[in-house]
Amino acid sequence: MGKINLDYAAAAPLDPAVLEAMLPFFVEQYGNPSSSHYLGEKPRQALGEARGKVGSLIKSAPENIIFTASASEANNLAVKGAARANRKKGNHIISSAIEHFSVLNPLKTLEKEGFATTLLPVDSSGMVSTRALEKAITDQTILVSIQTANPEIGTIQPIKELAYLAKNKGILFHTDAAAAAGWIPLDVDQMGIDLLTLSGDQFYGPKGAAALYLRRGVRLAPLIEGGIQERGLRAGTENVPAIVGLGEAARLANEDLEGRTAKVAAVRDELKKELIAGIPHLHLNGHPEIRLPQNLNLSVRFIEGEALLMRLNMAGIFVSSGSSCTSQALKSSHVLNAIGLPPELAQGSLLIVPGKESSLEDVPYVVEQFGRVTDLLRKMSPLYHRFLKEEKNNAPVQ
Amino acid sequence: MGKINLDYAAAAPLDPAVLEAMLPFFVEQYGNPSSSHYLGEKPRQALGEARGKVGSLIKSAPENIIFTASASEANNLAVKGAARANRKKGNHIISSAIEHFSVLNPLKTLEKEGFATTLLPVDSSGMVSTRALEKAITDQTILVSIQTANPEIGTIQPIKELAYLAKNKGILFHTDAAAAAGWIPLDVDQMGIDLLTLSGDQFYGPKGAAALYLRRGVRLAPLIEGGIQERGLRAGTENVPAIVGLGEAARLANEDLEGRTAKVAAVRDELKKELIAGIPHLHLNGHPEIRLPQNLNLSVRFIEGEALLMRLNMAGIFVSSGSSCTSQALKSSHVLNAIGLPPELAQGSLLIVPGKESSLEDVPYVVEQFGRVTDLLRKMSPLYHRFLKEEKNNAPVQ
Repeated sequence: MGKINLDYAAAAPLDPAVLEAMLPFFVEQYGNPSSSHYLGEKPRQALGEARGKVGSLIKSAPENIIFTASASEANNLAVKGAARANRKKGNHIISSAIEHFSVLNPLKTLEKEGFATTLLPVDSSGMVSTRALEKAITDQTILVSIQTANPEIGTIQPIKELAYLAKNKGILFHTDAAAAAGWIPLDVDQMGIDLLTLSGDQFYGPKGAAALYLRRGVRLAPLIEGGIQERGLRAGTENVPAIVGLGEAARLANEDLEGRTAKVAAVRDELKKELIAGIPHLHLNGHPEIRLPQNLNLSVRFIEGEALLMRLNMAGIFVSSGSSCTSQALKSSHVLNAIGLPPELAQGSLLIVPGKESSLEDVPYVVEQFGRVTDLLRKMSPLYHRFLKEEKNNAPVQ
Repeated sequence: MGKINLDYAAAAPLDPAVLEAMLPFFVEQYGNPSSSHYLGEKPRQALGEARGKVGSLIKSAPENIIFTASASEANNLAVKGAARANRKKGNHIISSAIEHFSVLNPLKTLEKEGFATTLLPVDSSGMVSTRALEKAITDQTILVSIQTANPEIGTIQPIKELAYLAKNKGILFHTDAAAAAGWIPLDVDQMGIDLLTLSGDQFYGPKGAAALYLRRGVRLAPLIEGGIQERGLRAGTENVPAIVGLGEAARLANEDLEGRTAKVAAVRDELKKELIAGIPHLHLNGHPEIRLPQNLNLSVRFIEGEALLMRLNMAGIFVSSGSSCTSQALKSSHVLNAIGLPPELAQGSLLIVPGKESSLEDVPYVVEQFGRVTDLLRKMSPLYHRFLKEEKNNAPVQ
């Protein structure tokens, strides 16, 4: 039995070229970039190069990149940091109902500090409306934070239009691009973005390195205070190997964004087509077109996503029932609730994210197993039996 | 010309065994520990094992260890997290004048939030007095944060006595043991500690992994909010390879704490003896006895530490002029100021920290070069020439 990973959003193997770029910085070039002697030279230079490579991925100057240890840290730094540093200008923050918890939970903390927050609703495809943002803006609004694309349902937001509205009123605009960076073209100037979160582990870079883009002149209160690393905005000895890996992963993603995307989208599209054709009662979540190329989210009527995941796991197929950050909390997804999915469909949802090792050749096996497991679980499902009975009763009399 | 690293506090090469333990988790076992399928199993298990190994180093149960990305993050989490979560009990925090900036700067932020802070002075050896702590405690005091040992001058504090005073009054006690863990025996229960910071990169573990010990029942407000990783106290996908490396480094340190310490202390002691015997006008900073085994801090009269560092660098000897977190700020050390060192001595100070690759055989070359460079720089020093003139004038008439 093979092992087929269709949960690349949770974790991806490091690109071998990325690991190779990192290796010299563990044992040979182990110095501290802050050291003014010989041992600091190469690590300091490598840090600068990585900053350039990460900047290039989003068309930013290197000096506007702040390295953090995770996208969650970058989101916390962006939202809490920008709100606290700009408190005198106002106390209102706008975000969306389907943001990652590393944006939503900081907003709750800011509320306790006296900030007011508005979470914009989304439509059934997960899209935020520019009109809703326009209406929500008050003279107290200092920050808007809307994700570039949703990690769970893949919907890509009209960031340029949303950011334009904020910019026009002198309001800072942050976007969590953790799921999008490395997968769709991003240009901070063209999009009019002030702060942007990205994470290397979403495009075959290492865990432990992410970045926050910070437009020149934007004020930010640091979360981790201490030394003067990262312009005093993020203290702590830089994790040089991981940052070098992030830089290399960014360079590789940038170099072949289209080719890489097309390959993964082909697998995703084939899976979508074959699964929906072969298995009854599947429902596609997220926008049908305007979505991340690697993302497929399906609700499977009458069964629990977690049960389906476990059975597929036994067949060597690895998918997720939602965000891995909350998978052990076993709550139904706030994203699926926000797009108005009824609870029974939300609980039967699966996140399917192919990656670079995924192949079109895997699709038939996945569809076959998906069908087998779905059949099996439906046979055990009281909901399904009730549905069949009702369907029979409603059938036209012959 | 060889290269002699005597700046192991700034950075150390990874122990090859540590790197070997990490490697499988980059490409093969790359899964997300939160994934409930197969790919999450080994990483989740490895995370648990690392928690156990780190716990063992400080005699803590595994579940009281929270992984962070750096000691700076752990210090910020401890100080800001404990203060904010216990705000209703009081608003006063006590610390010392010679803490790391990742404790001191958070205290300044807390002051802006309405907390009051007292920084205890230290004596000329860098020691905090238990009497001073006793006097400083008020009925508003909720947290005491005193470092286990100072990273710059090596002085080890009477933590057990200090913690006892706090414990007796129901006050939380945090200790920043980043410079001490892996070098002196630590036992959180015996020492009566509630929170403890440690960092793997101080004992041949990787950059990017550190830990906060948190006694069961102690309340803490998270800094990085989002997913439910680390019991909801530190969101973000766990950096599995780095955490595995931290665990292995802790295991190795724990296994041979005495042997490792003795070897490095022998080099340190020989350097100290030979340098002080061979070069006039050297001054030892920190406590002469009660200090970290790897730490030597010398003030060199009449010359700038930075100039000395640069000349030694050219001779292949790498030392630091103080904390690497602030080395590029070029300010005189707050630690040396606090022990009452006159500015001209504080600016001529060098931090010398041998490590596992250091050898007694290096000592003669280091002493020779140190003497040569010191001579050279003194010849160019107006201060030194004034001193010689005054000495001559004050000499008894023959």
